[in-house]
Amino acid sequence: MSDSKPTPEGKTGYYQRHIFFCLNDRVNGEESCAHHGAKEAFDRCKSAVKAAGLAGPGKVRVNKAGCLDRCAGGPIAVVYPEGVWYTYVDESDIDEIVESHLKNGEIVERLLTPPEIGR
Amino acid sequence: MSDSKPTPEGKTGYYQRHIFFCLNDRVNGEESCAHHGAKEAFDRCKSAVKAAGLAGPGKVRVNKAGCLDRCAGGPIAVVYPEGVWYTYVDESDIDEIVESHLKNGEIVERLLTPPEIGR
Repeated sequence: MSDSKPTPEGKTGYYQRHIFFCLNDRVNGEESCAHHGAKEAFDRCKSAVKAAGLAGPGKVRVNKAGCLDRCAGGPIAVVYPEGVWYTYVDESDIDEIVESHLKNGEIVERLLTPPEIGR
Repeated sequence: MSDSKPTPEGKTGYYQRHIFFCLNDRVNGEESCAHHGAKEAFDRCKSAVKAAGLAGPGKVRVNKAGCLDRCAGGPIAVVYPEGVWYTYVDESDIDEIVESHLKNGEIVERLLTPPEIGR
């Protein structure tokens, strides 16, 4: 597999930032992000982004996703194009991700999912 | 809103490439990707990536997603971190995305969603 090619300098994607929340809801007794407030976090993020005027093409998209396969770090969300992964706990964490990262491009270091965390 | 900060040179994300398929299934009579083979395309992509040995951390993740809000270009998928958007039609399109882009990093120009296409 070859390396990723760099995006041309200055090229802007359809969204400046695209955050995906795992909303996977396992019904087989195993843990999943939906058991840990993922839907509420998604709703909070979506509302906050909209209220801040950040939503839309050229700006931010808050997206539902299925399992992101880093379940041991759940509940989890990922921001692209940066590829920054967050493990959040409560609504204030979501508010900080919106204000710091989605609005101002500053990564919230304290919420980063440790790199070794996988499924 | 500030500009995105570039990823540090050489830093690799948890996945080298992460493709999200819109699987939104509207039941209100409106069109949606699920009415146009999105689930079958997702399954095809997932199987092909696994069969090619591309699946996993440091490699490729094929992901379910909710509405990506570019419905006029559906059925649709997006590849990050590149932020490359595809409008596909059939299984051969999926196979080409896997072989060209997900495996070899070569964008499939003929399948690119036109930049003006939104909801």
